[in-house]
Amino acid sequence: MAGRPRFVPLIAGLEEEDRDGVAEANRNFYRAFMRRDLAALEELWASATPVACLHPGQPPLFDRATIMASWQAIMRNPETPAQIKIVEDRLIVRGRMGVVICREVLPKAHLVATNMFVREGDAWKIAHHQSALAPPPKDRPTQPAAAPRRDRRNLH
Amino acid sequence: MAGRPRFVPLIAGLEEEDRDGVAEANRNFYRAFMRRDLAALEELWASATPVACLHPGQPPLFDRATIMASWQAIMRNPETPAQIKIVEDRLIVRGRMGVVICREVLPKAHLVATNMFVREGDAWKIAHHQSALAPPPKDRPTQPAAAPRRDRRNLH
Repeated sequence: MAGRPRFVPLIAGLEEEDRDGVAEANRNFYRAFMRRDLAALEELWASATPVACLHPGQPPLFDRATIMASWQAIMRNPETPAQIKIVEDRLIVRGRMGVVICREVLPKAHLVATNMFVREGDAWKIAHHQSALAPPPKDRPTQPAAAPRRDRRNLH
Repeated sequence: MAGRPRFVPLIAGLEEEDRDGVAEANRNFYRAFMRRDLAALEELWASATPVACLHPGQPPLFDRATIMASWQAIMRNPETPAQIKIVEDRLIVRGRMGVVICREVLPKAHLVATNMFVREGDAWKIAHHQSALAPPPKDRPTQPAAAPRRDRRNLH
């Protein structure tokens, strides 16, 4: 939002869609994860909204403390890659809610994610995350910078 | 919404959260799918909003026609179960956007889904769907009515 004049809206519903704010919250979410910064991650999660988290192949989590413990366990796991590249992100924002759909490109896996953000006070907070394994892009292969390797699809 | 007096809100942002409307749209979505009613399904998908669909293990789809073709292919597949039981659904609604997180209980599989709805005119339309395989509930086993069978987790 820097560099753009901001006026206090008379009525929140008339404020223009805050796509920048949602995109920034989504970047902060992955940045906190890559830095293994649990405190920052926890700060980014909604505290006044029901939360949910659907990790790949795991039972759904609906309790905030359990969700935070799950992120801590993932971040502490030495097999969790340090770098995640977010590509093909799409935003849909309406008033006080926004959704980002994106690819999470890991060195050895491709995932697709849905991240839902809600406005709490002046901040965008993540209230729901679902990620699941997906095949790598076909048309525009996105090679992860951390581990370039031959695309097996080219062999046949 | 039937049976409840409805007043035209002066300002959309001041309208109370339409949880009933989002829940109904979610039910209609699965009903259309179970009835193999492609026309109804297509009517339920947003037409004035960017759409996305993440089927389990598939590449993300961002094109409306491609998304409709994918549903048609799934519904035409004789291996697609006729019945899907939706359980543990959670709603988060803010103004003109809502998200439903739910379990999709199939006879031989359990999935978790995120369904995002947006307000287009007077109707709630689905603009994004992600579903992925998940283990069955542990604490409250939800046996699909269509195919009751022994829970293998009880064997150890």
